[in-house]
Amino acid sequence: MDGVLADVYEQLFDMDEKDFGKRKTWDDVAGKKENDTFPHIRKYLYKKDFFRSMKVISGSQPVVEKLNKAYDLYIVSAATEFPLSLSEKQAWLNEHFPFITWQQMVFCGSKQIIRADIMIDDHFKNLDFFKGQTSILFTQPHNAHADNGPHRRVHNWQEIADILL
Amino acid sequence: MDGVLADVYEQLFDMDEKDFGKRKTWDDVAGKKENDTFPHIRKYLYKKDFFRSMKVISGSQPVVEKLNKAYDLYIVSAATEFPLSLSEKQAWLNEHFPFITWQQMVFCGSKQIIRADIMIDDHFKNLDFFKGQTSILFTQPHNAHADNGPHRRVHNWQEIADILL
Repeated sequence: MDGVLADVYEQLFDMDEKDFGKRKTWDDVAGKKENDTFPHIRKYLYKKDFFRSMKVISGSQPVVEKLNKAYDLYIVSAATEFPLSLSEKQAWLNEHFPFITWQQMVFCGSKQIIRADIMIDDHFKNLDFFKGQTSILFTQPHNAHADNGPHRRVHNWQEIADILL
Repeated sequence: MDGVLADVYEQLFDMDEKDFGKRKTWDDVAGKKENDTFPHIRKYLYKKDFFRSMKVISGSQPVVEKLNKAYDLYIVSAATEFPLSLSEKQAWLNEHFPFITWQQMVFCGSKQIIRADIMIDDHFKNLDFFKGQTSILFTQPHNAHADNGPHRRVHNWQEIADILL
């Protein structure tokens, strides 16, 4: 969800700019871990509405809607580290992806327990443990300079549509 | 979680007794679906603190603590149907099973996406779709008269300890 459907970086850029007076750019943060890029990130993540008010990643909605018709789709989100995020994430999905039912939502800690054929994620810690056939790395600044490894890299939702639809 | 770790029926007996003046017993409800047994169940499930205030199922804590040392353990709970339940269930686990970390918690709708070797559950709708090796049916009134099918039935946590420890 974060970094694939929900635009975490736009949210972090906004909050970081309020704290430090200058807006960082993709180039400023590419290739760096979020923790090293945003000095106050832990404060932001625990703030009320951090997850609820995120922007939707460009182009995701129409593609997810089509994927939802073609596949048995689940939205799996690491959420239990931030207890406030659970209900915020569900409300966010209900608002921006209203065709996703509660049966299709999973809020977890580790994604190692997920059984599926295809996983789209922005973190190697999730993709590297995935046992399904196809693992797709969604480019975000923190992974932008990393080697894809066995995963297929996509830069936007149109590329996902080209592969899966 | 519900019906395996959290004592849903005690909670339902309490609330039903408040509404109707007479406390039902296990024998009254055995072999019947919860929806047919408790006329106001939908109201109870959406009530604040329904999930937060449940009693712990007898004998579960020491066995889960030992299982947690012997196995790679996850607590998987159907929760997204009742948005209030998400944070209540996490708080409940933190209180009653403090050795379970956020990494081990999964709050979902359908459990068909779960990859594991052993599943302990009280519902056939979860066990019947499980792809792991061992499926254990935890007796609760709603399943008490049903045929186990391919699942191994246990009546209490001591029996789980005898099998798994």
